[in-house]
Amino acid sequence: MQKVNVAAKLALFDDYWHPRIVGALNGQLVKLAKLQGSFDWHHHEDEDELFLVIKGELVIELRGGEVRLAPGEFFIVPRGVEHRPVASEETHVMLFEPASTLHTGNVVTEKTRTVLEWI
Amino acid sequence: MQKVNVAAKLALFDDYWHPRIVGALNGQLVKLAKLQGSFDWHHHEDEDELFLVIKGELVIELRGGEVRLAPGEFFIVPRGVEHRPVASEETHVMLFEPASTLHTGNVVTEKTRTVLEWI
Repeated sequence: MQKVNVAAKLALFDDYWHPRIVGALNGQLVKLAKLQGSFDWHHHEDEDELFLVIKGELVIELRGGEVRLAPGEFFIVPRGVEHRPVASEETHVMLFEPASTLHTGNVVTEKTRTVLEWI
Repeated sequence: MQKVNVAAKLALFDDYWHPRIVGALNGQLVKLAKLQGSFDWHHHEDEDELFLVIKGELVIELRGGEVRLAPGEFFIVPRGVEHRPVASEETHVMLFEPASTLHTGNVVTEKTRTVLEWI
């Protein structure tokens, strides 16, 4: 039962593509991540995933299109939909997704993290 | 499959204590609300509820304490915990909670809304 200051949590880490957990509710997790560069194409079989941009710009590439998110904008990637997050500059995001969500979904790559820490 | 601009959605309504739905994922809803004044004491029997402040200041009164949230801060009210949101100035919040969540939880008051609209 403690409030979370998003900026203060983001100041605790610097590495990219390594989400940290900052909240849990109803079987879902709230995560913060710093992104720069391109992630790997993947999908989540059973989980919808929300990306809310805090800082920077996030492009979510989809097969056949893309969504471009500025700070204060969010997008929900529905389950089963292949996507690839890309950030040309350092970008900070908040994620909402089920606790069961795997980092790189259906694939395992050099970017995959199997254990995420609470901060 | 459309992105949501939080500020643009907030510009679509002006009334207080009347959340609008702006997203759905994994059985949860994302809502936006404008708050001013005091809400009613209530709890949600089976739902945890996240309040993220976008603008203004939100005080979440609890039995035996309170949490004061500035923009960029969030708090999760665990299921079963009585709370009363209070905003001394106009305050904008994003809510994240199960689709089953009732507006005023275990009570019905003059502020209760039984149907919430998508915007």
